[in-house]
Amino acid sequence: MNRVGLERKVLSENDRLAATLRDRFETHNVLCANLISSPGAGKTTLLERTLENLNPHARVAVLTGDIQTENDARRLRRFGFPVRQITTGGTCHLDARMIERGLEEWALDELEMLFIENVGNLVCPSSYDLGEAAKIVVLSVAEGEDKPLKYPSIFFKSELMVLNKVDLLPYVPFDIAAAEENARRVHPGIEIIRVSCARRMGLGAWMAWLGARREKMLNARAAVV
Amino acid sequence: MNRVGLERKVLSENDRLAATLRDRFETHNVLCANLISSPGAGKTTLLERTLENLNPHARVAVLTGDIQTENDARRLRRFGFPVRQITTGGTCHLDARMIERGLEEWALDELEMLFIENVGNLVCPSSYDLGEAAKIVVLSVAEGEDKPLKYPSIFFKSELMVLNKVDLLPYVPFDIAAAEENARRVHPGIEIIRVSCARRMGLGAWMAWLGARREKMLNARAAVV
Repeated sequence: MNRVGLERKVLSENDRLAATLRDRFETHNVLCANLISSPGAGKTTLLERTLENLNPHARVAVLTGDIQTENDARRLRRFGFPVRQITTGGTCHLDARMIERGLEEWALDELEMLFIENVGNLVCPSSYDLGEAAKIVVLSVAEGEDKPLKYPSIFFKSELMVLNKVDLLPYVPFDIAAAEENARRVHPGIEIIRVSCARRMGLGAWMAWLGARREKMLNARAAVV
Repeated sequence: MNRVGLERKVLSENDRLAATLRDRFETHNVLCANLISSPGAGKTTLLERTLENLNPHARVAVLTGDIQTENDARRLRRFGFPVRQITTGGTCHLDARMIERGLEEWALDELEMLFIENVGNLVCPSSYDLGEAAKIVVLSVAEGEDKPLKYPSIFFKSELMVLNKVDLLPYVPFDIAAAEENARRVHPGIEIIRVSCARRMGLGAWMAWLGARREKMLNARAAVV
């Protein structure tokens, strides 16, 4: 009983911090995207492809989370954008406090987009609001088409499913129509983009989605102000 | 502060239950293996191949965990062995209490081997002892060779790493020597078996490992009694 009570308290403290972060992102017109997937589904590679496709003057930054190692930050820094690694030391998800600390040395008014790469875990990160405008779930075709039904929370909460590694479709038992139907069964409004980050396929649609999503945020804000 | 204290209390309650389960498994000469991996690394397919390779009179049972759906139990029941699904309803790991309940209708003295398929999650299940004789981590070559360094706890605690989907090696950027070196850097004594469950490769070594592991357990017990 105590455990449930405390979990609620921890989550509501996180929600309070996340609301503050969301305010800050909106005030500074920063689109914040929270990328979530299983280990090895391709979040870091998707970010590598994103950064290499951006105008080098784009005002974009990345916070990348892992339990151990600085590997991902090293991979992502090659593209010249600001990148910080958040090493959780065992914790299975990022929380709003970690994001707040990760942002400490950055001026939000110098950014237009912030990517958060969550810890590789299809379960726990879905419970922690980070103040993001959008959660994005990355699913690899090597994982199987049943995953949206087995891990419904993250598919329900994500605006977009990026279906990665489609170059492997000839070699794996993966029914792509069933995968998309399963995602839509959990979340009828979910958008879906098929990509292969390894083979640089489908990335135009992904870059266009990001641009349109930031426009949408700016327009929504203009309508309010 | 409270949170850490409570987490310890929950874990120590789990440890107490797990110790009771371990006693029961040992008393009845049941080898219990706890399979852990990311979502979609191939735990269920490995179990399908295992059950189809067993003598139909083998006294083997499976407890299979998922957040939602009974899909895995349906897949595994086709082989005629007793299978029960544990649906956690959101919880990111199995715990010893769920195993205790899962076993309620089975007589342990009618079993020689129990497989537990954990929730697909490379992080949280490593913290929960289920009374198993051995944890086994399944890593798919589609996930990348850096995973043992990024998720060290489960590789440190597993006796065996089953490296699955080796049939995909020609199509994915995966350095198999580096993956094995990374696993051994975290856990020098870890055993490694390469398989492709989809193509039925390497399964002889896996079945032999299971047989040898049960022998080892029986011999250790004979030495004590």
